[in-house]
Amino acid sequence: MSEVAEEPARDSTAAQQDHRAEQRRRIIAAAITCFIRDGFHGSSMQKICAEAGMSPGALYRYFPSKESLIGAIVEGERADRARVLDVLQGAPTFAEGLAEVMEMLLSDTSQIACAALGPEVMAEAIRNEKLRDALEPVEQETRDLLMRTLHTARANGEIDPALDLDTLNMLLNAIGDGLMLHNLLHPEWDLSGRSGEISGMIRRMIRPAPDGA
Amino acid sequence: MSEVAEEPARDSTAAQQDHRAEQRRRIIAAAITCFIRDGFHGSSMQKICAEAGMSPGALYRYFPSKESLIGAIVEGERADRARVLDVLQGAPTFAEGLAEVMEMLLSDTSQIACAALGPEVMAEAIRNEKLRDALEPVEQETRDLLMRTLHTARANGEIDPALDLDTLNMLLNAIGDGLMLHNLLHPEWDLSGRSGEISGMIRRMIRPAPDGA
Repeated sequence: MSEVAEEPARDSTAAQQDHRAEQRRRIIAAAITCFIRDGFHGSSMQKICAEAGMSPGALYRYFPSKESLIGAIVEGERADRARVLDVLQGAPTFAEGLAEVMEMLLSDTSQIACAALGPEVMAEAIRNEKLRDALEPVEQETRDLLMRTLHTARANGEIDPALDLDTLNMLLNAIGDGLMLHNLLHPEWDLSGRSGEISGMIRRMIRPAPDGA
Repeated sequence: MSEVAEEPARDSTAAQQDHRAEQRRRIIAAAITCFIRDGFHGSSMQKICAEAGMSPGALYRYFPSKESLIGAIVEGERADRARVLDVLQGAPTFAEGLAEVMEMLLSDTSQIACAALGPEVMAEAIRNEKLRDALEPVEQETRDLLMRTLHTARANGEIDPALDLDTLNMLLNAIGDGLMLHNLLHPEWDLSGRSGEISGMIRRMIRPAPDGA
């Protein structure tokens, strides 16, 4: 087979790949819309097809199950989380990074596509082993990236050496998820307007004790 | 009508009330089992009937909808939460109460019937207005009771007067819910074994700064 003959085949493959990627994005966007509106259990594959304007046959070629769809959504969250942690790592100090990240988490939900879906995904992951297995590597990556930042902050004297960083890492993850949950549940609390105060409280928690206590 | 004639009627009413209360307890227990196993949306009234060993007609006489069932479960949580806050208020110091409550929340789940159902209920409440309306008075009561304890702790010099107690109250609620979520999602983290360290970190957050900073 000549090189000339191969060219159109490659073009066709690239076009097919573009089409497949676009179809995947369309289905995932439709699924997120459905899950936020009706919950994971309230969203049948039929509803997701209707939302995406696609036949069940077409949809099942891309995602054989709701679990695989959630898996793809969780995978998309990896990029969101990495961007949040980039902000934390790129800040001049941990304190400044923390303030910026808190502001992002509590106000700029447009930057964090899955914030609105987080509680639903987490509640489902507690009893759904497949989803938990899909979510865990992303959770682990978040903890790994945060841990690196915590080590740097401790080396820079911003975190009390007496604190166990593993426990602190877990607690910070729990605080982030708890705040995002209550931000959705209680928009009237204006957690966004309180984000500076909240990050200040977390700084108090981690700063070296003046007396070494 | 003589008093003698009234006695059997009263007895009968009391027996009927006992029977009704027992039936309600049975249905609520069945619903909790179903919701934990299959989620709110995955639990049909039929499944709950089967779990309770009851006909749909009998069940609907007690609870006309899944929302009313969740409402009853949330109402039951009020007693659990009040008990947790009793521990906090009854402790000699806020620090000791906090340590005890953290231990209860992260290990003694048997004392907090709805801990396992919390993330499911909260995720559902975000999009389900009826459920949110049922949950909110219980959430408000929790915040009111906690606020009283925070005022006492501040008066006793355990909380820095510079901290805004409203924001602290919200943050402590978010921390509690975030920790219970991750305790269910990551039993391997052994948050129960870390509860002392976690309550220590929260104490650092609230204690008066030695330099008044």
